[in-house]
Amino acid sequence: MTLLRTQMKQLAEAAHQSSFSLAQLDAKVKSKILREAAGSLKKNWKKIVNANMKDLRYADQAGLGSAMKDRLRLDKERVVKMADAAAEVAQLPDPIGRILAKWKRPNGIEISKVTVPLGVILIIYESRPNVTSECASLCFKSGNTVILRGGKEAFHSNRAIAAIYRQILKKHHLPQEAVTFIQTTDRSAIDNLLQMDRDINLVIPRGGEALIRRVAELSRIPVIKHYKGVCHVYIDREADLKKAFKIALNAKCQRVSVCNAMETLLVHQKAAPRFLPLFGEMLRAHHCEIRGDRLTRRFIPYAKQAKEADWYTEYLDDILSIRVVKDAAEAIRHINHYGSSHTDAIVTENKKTAKQFADQVDSSSVMINVSTRFSDGNEYGFGAEIGISTDKIHARGPMGLDGLTSYKYLVKGNGQIRQ
Amino acid sequence: MTLLRTQMKQLAEAAHQSSFSLAQLDAKVKSKILREAAGSLKKNWKKIVNANMKDLRYADQAGLGSAMKDRLRLDKERVVKMADAAAEVAQLPDPIGRILAKWKRPNGIEISKVTVPLGVILIIYESRPNVTSECASLCFKSGNTVILRGGKEAFHSNRAIAAIYRQILKKHHLPQEAVTFIQTTDRSAIDNLLQMDRDINLVIPRGGEALIRRVAELSRIPVIKHYKGVCHVYIDREADLKKAFKIALNAKCQRVSVCNAMETLLVHQKAAPRFLPLFGEMLRAHHCEIRGDRLTRRFIPYAKQAKEADWYTEYLDDILSIRVVKDAAEAIRHINHYGSSHTDAIVTENKKTAKQFADQVDSSSVMINVSTRFSDGNEYGFGAEIGISTDKIHARGPMGLDGLTSYKYLVKGNGQIRQ
Repeated sequence: MTLLRTQMKQLAEAAHQSSFSLAQLDAKVKSKILREAAGSLKKNWKKIVNANMKDLRYADQAGLGSAMKDRLRLDKERVVKMADAAAEVAQLPDPIGRILAKWKRPNGIEISKVTVPLGVILIIYESRPNVTSECASLCFKSGNTVILRGGKEAFHSNRAIAAIYRQILKKHHLPQEAVTFIQTTDRSAIDNLLQMDRDINLVIPRGGEALIRRVAELSRIPVIKHYKGVCHVYIDREADLKKAFKIALNAKCQRVSVCNAMETLLVHQKAAPRFLPLFGEMLRAHHCEIRGDRLTRRFIPYAKQAKEADWYTEYLDDILSIRVVKDAAEAIRHINHYGSSHTDAIVTENKKTAKQFADQVDSSSVMINVSTRFSDGNEYGFGAEIGISTDKIHARGPMGLDGLTSYKYLVKGNGQIRQ
Repeated sequence: MTLLRTQMKQLAEAAHQSSFSLAQLDAKVKSKILREAAGSLKKNWKKIVNANMKDLRYADQAGLGSAMKDRLRLDKERVVKMADAAAEVAQLPDPIGRILAKWKRPNGIEISKVTVPLGVILIIYESRPNVTSECASLCFKSGNTVILRGGKEAFHSNRAIAAIYRQILKKHHLPQEAVTFIQTTDRSAIDNLLQMDRDINLVIPRGGEALIRRVAELSRIPVIKHYKGVCHVYIDREADLKKAFKIALNAKCQRVSVCNAMETLLVHQKAAPRFLPLFGEMLRAHHCEIRGDRLTRRFIPYAKQAKEADWYTEYLDDILSIRVVKDAAEAIRHINHYGSSHTDAIVTENKKTAKQFADQVDSSSVMINVSTRFSDGNEYGFGAEIGISTDKIHARGPMGLDGLTSYKYLVKGNGQIRQ
């Protein structure tokens, strides 16, 4: 065993141990501690911003791009926002100890299914340092120990934020391992941790597809993955065109760089003549490039020819693929074939078609006459979001605190034995 | 790409395709088809028993043990029992399309969380051929396509049973791939399938620990694991000794070879003098070997000395480890350290101690004054069981039809866009 592996093993075991006391914490105590952490983040904003400056200097030396540096940057306002988010998590209903179901069997035994924390959650993330506080607060609220592994570009910022949480834990005589921060930026630290399925219960990678694929390939621990969002809007023959323009434009152009933005527009052949020419102009006004199939290009002559690969692509940019389809069935087939099972919308006034679409599209969120941009934990009212799962196992779609819980069966009797 | 890999890729893709039509099936249609399958199993019992004879001849040649051969053997009675089990699954409530939650947001959008099938489930199992029918019926009922890979010792039996299901599917113009049976016994077929995470949604290995570890190590697809059950019964200081004798004896001796049988008994030091001498005699009458710690051996002189490894061991045999503990807290620490988070019981009349045990023991089932042997899908009233999960992710403990579902969010609006 290498030294690093030994260190990581000790760290994982200590995290596992700490999870037992964390799981027993009273809801009120958890809220109180989180509110204190939020207060301490605000009070120590300067310390955090100073640590962030080290990261920014490193970013300059490394020649990081300005978009990356903007994501990395912390100022007083951003720290206050981060603290407010933690205070909001404190106010959410406690997800632990909820009785999901309770029933009695003919032999008199009483069974209840009660939510419990998962145990230890390893979060691997990139650039934005506020993810440190977001994950620490969500995991703590759900009684889980968190192991944080941020990107090396945000190392000092992340460490300073984690330290605030750890100080509050210490003050309350709780194990500081409940918020474990990995002190080394050595890549193989993660490779080691991903093998420790006895001590770590779940891995959530938050970052680009390459990071997620790498984690999923290496991990012996269950991984909740958030792959790409190749989201579609389908404009049906019986669409209300006013809604259609509004929704399609919002889904594509309100914010292009996010996973719930539209990447491909599908238009019913009968709606195409009335919809596409004007929509093409709208996109042009937004400097959005269009890649269309043959029929699309008949209505939008300046559209480029779409290639097969375009239908699979998450542009996260001012580019849109457009295809004209024969009917809803063809739209559904296209989505299930080329899509990523993330979020897909239909615009139609026909309830039967809407139901067909909702039933048959195999995506975590199916929107009817609503923009795909609403696929989000906050918009769904979860209060906070640890990510959006593109898996079907455990949690699917926007994941709030509930996604960080498991359950146990409590079986009470009076001496019953099995015959 | 090897020929086998190409074949497996085609098989997985066809299974994935078939899952779309399966997911749309009406609850009544699914029940009807399952009842027909049950009828056809009964009607064709001779065909199945004949296929089974081939396997038994092979078992003779291979020199398989008599326990193994007994698990493999099918006769008319066993086929009828298998068919009855499928008919029972037909009668269970449909797990698909259930609205788990429904709410409205301030902006008027309406969100519902609705159960859907997982898609394609790969089941890898050993020896008992009735698992073929069990898994086919449970997966079909939950709208999932199943890929069946049984042990080579039961190949002909499994194929004959799967063929019955496939005939019924064909008769109803449904894709036969919905019950896919792997025709090759080549081991690398599985190694290939375990990489196909685009087409297969879940893997459930049913068999010994070695099989499960191997699948978990190789798989890129989420795996629900059923590792060992190192189950404990803790006899508290305030136990009703009548219940204690009954429960401990039932947990250990009613059936030793199952995962929910007791492997380690923990006894409070104050209960030990009254409990252990007599219980030792009871075990002796059942020819059950005892491996105890120093204090246990004071009360049961013929007990062997337990070694450290014994506390971790799932004997599945007439052997019991016994340890005397200082108090409930020590019992809980022992269970969380040496146990397998499967099923653990306390016998006590003290409600506070019972609550402490229930809260702090980190196991999928915690029993209070009940035998561990009740930890079972049928005993919990699930009607049928696909396995007992020792994972915390997705499904935990006895897994019924609900464990074979995921969900989607349906979001309905009237043209809402994100600001």
